[in-house]
Amino acid sequence: VFLFYQPLIPAGVLALSEEESKHAVKVLRLTEGSEIEIADGHGHFYGARITHADPKKCAFSIHTTSFSKRRDYRIHIAVAPTKNIDRTEWFVEKAVEFGIDEITFVECKKSERRVVNLDRFEKLIVSALKQSRQPWLPVVNPITPFPRILATKATERYISYVDHTNPLQLKAAAPLRSDYLVLIGPEGDFAEEELAAAIQAGFQKVALGPSRLRTETAALAACMTLNLVNQ
Amino acid sequence: VFLFYQPLIPAGVLALSEEESKHAVKVLRLTEGSEIEIADGHGHFYGARITHADPKKCAFSIHTTSFSKRRDYRIHIAVAPTKNIDRTEWFVEKAVEFGIDEITFVECKKSERRVVNLDRFEKLIVSALKQSRQPWLPVVNPITPFPRILATKATERYISYVDHTNPLQLKAAAPLRSDYLVLIGPEGDFAEEELAAAIQAGFQKVALGPSRLRTETAALAACMTLNLVNQ
Repeated sequence: VFLFYQPLIPAGVLALSEEESKHAVKVLRLTEGSEIEIADGHGHFYGARITHADPKKCAFSIHTTSFSKRRDYRIHIAVAPTKNIDRTEWFVEKAVEFGIDEITFVECKKSERRVVNLDRFEKLIVSALKQSRQPWLPVVNPITPFPRILATKATERYISYVDHTNPLQLKAAAPLRSDYLVLIGPEGDFAEEELAAAIQAGFQKVALGPSRLRTETAALAACMTLNLVNQ
Repeated sequence: VFLFYQPLIPAGVLALSEEESKHAVKVLRLTEGSEIEIADGHGHFYGARITHADPKKCAFSIHTTSFSKRRDYRIHIAVAPTKNIDRTEWFVEKAVEFGIDEITFVECKKSERRVVNLDRFEKLIVSALKQSRQPWLPVVNPITPFPRILATKATERYISYVDHTNPLQLKAAAPLRSDYLVLIGPEGDFAEEELAAAIQAGFQKVALGPSRLRTETAALAACMTLNLVNQ
């Protein structure tokens, strides 16, 4: 059974978006009566049947509903996008597979990239959500200046920074079942004054293991570590 | 200081390979007397100085040596290469960054790819080793038929297989400081008879978290989980 993404079903939307309609009717050649499955990105999976195979607005009726609550912990990763954007796209795809709640792109002093195409990331996230059957759609936020990130709320706030006076591992620092925000710097790392400002704002400095990791690998390591701690 | 890779230095090799020589002399324009750093992939990092800037055989002398022992655990991942080889390359690069000891490509009943370019993976591993300053070069093995993998030795042997009767998580199953082998199946997963044969051969069936993961994501999750357990 093919899986489609359509938000706002609980609010009465009973047709697929133009893009998903085209995919269903033109590409997959589904017809009236075809069984489909729909994720709404807000905890629901619906068993549905096509009632009108319109390639622009494919209507359906729902015959089963299942609902998954949000997990009892929350992961927000704020990461400087990489110069080669493919690397950041990989991080986002994998993070959705493992489970992530919010991604913010952050602009740092030494950032090698200061613009991202948010539409592209939103599409990538929907595609990864369908692929890995995640019930909840992660939020993705546009480029945010570093000082604004420091004002972002979370119960546990960390900044990933590797130096030789930094033995605290995220794995050891993170309490169970909490609400986490982790900052990951650009290729050239955070500036000293950014680190100082984060610590001043109450962020804890953590390491992500003994290896030197690339930006996107560090971001994924933080996401995986928090998921594993809570497994 | 630029880092180069040159194996067999303890055996008396005191010149860079043709490829690294070209990179040092032609691309970076290093000359006699330039300070360089060399990793041998067998635990050593050398501080060295160029003595003859030959673009085909760049000679050096060593003035400092440091040595890192192998870690006290060992990770071997045997994975079916993905149809889109980029995905497997991504896994290999990230696994080297996190720390891995051996990678074997395995041919399964439902494999979507039955050939890999081993040279390409060897180059990728050297590049990731330099990037992440790993002291030990991981071993990479060519495509191996599934039954041969079952005869591969390791203290702890696991097969990743997700079904609803499979609550044992790798994180919970893995004892500390051991020698691990984890089998990861192709896009269409292992065949029932492969799973049965692995269990017959003494492999434990494990899950890698609650999400449905792609082949290369599962392989990386296994590597990362075993590293985290031992951190």
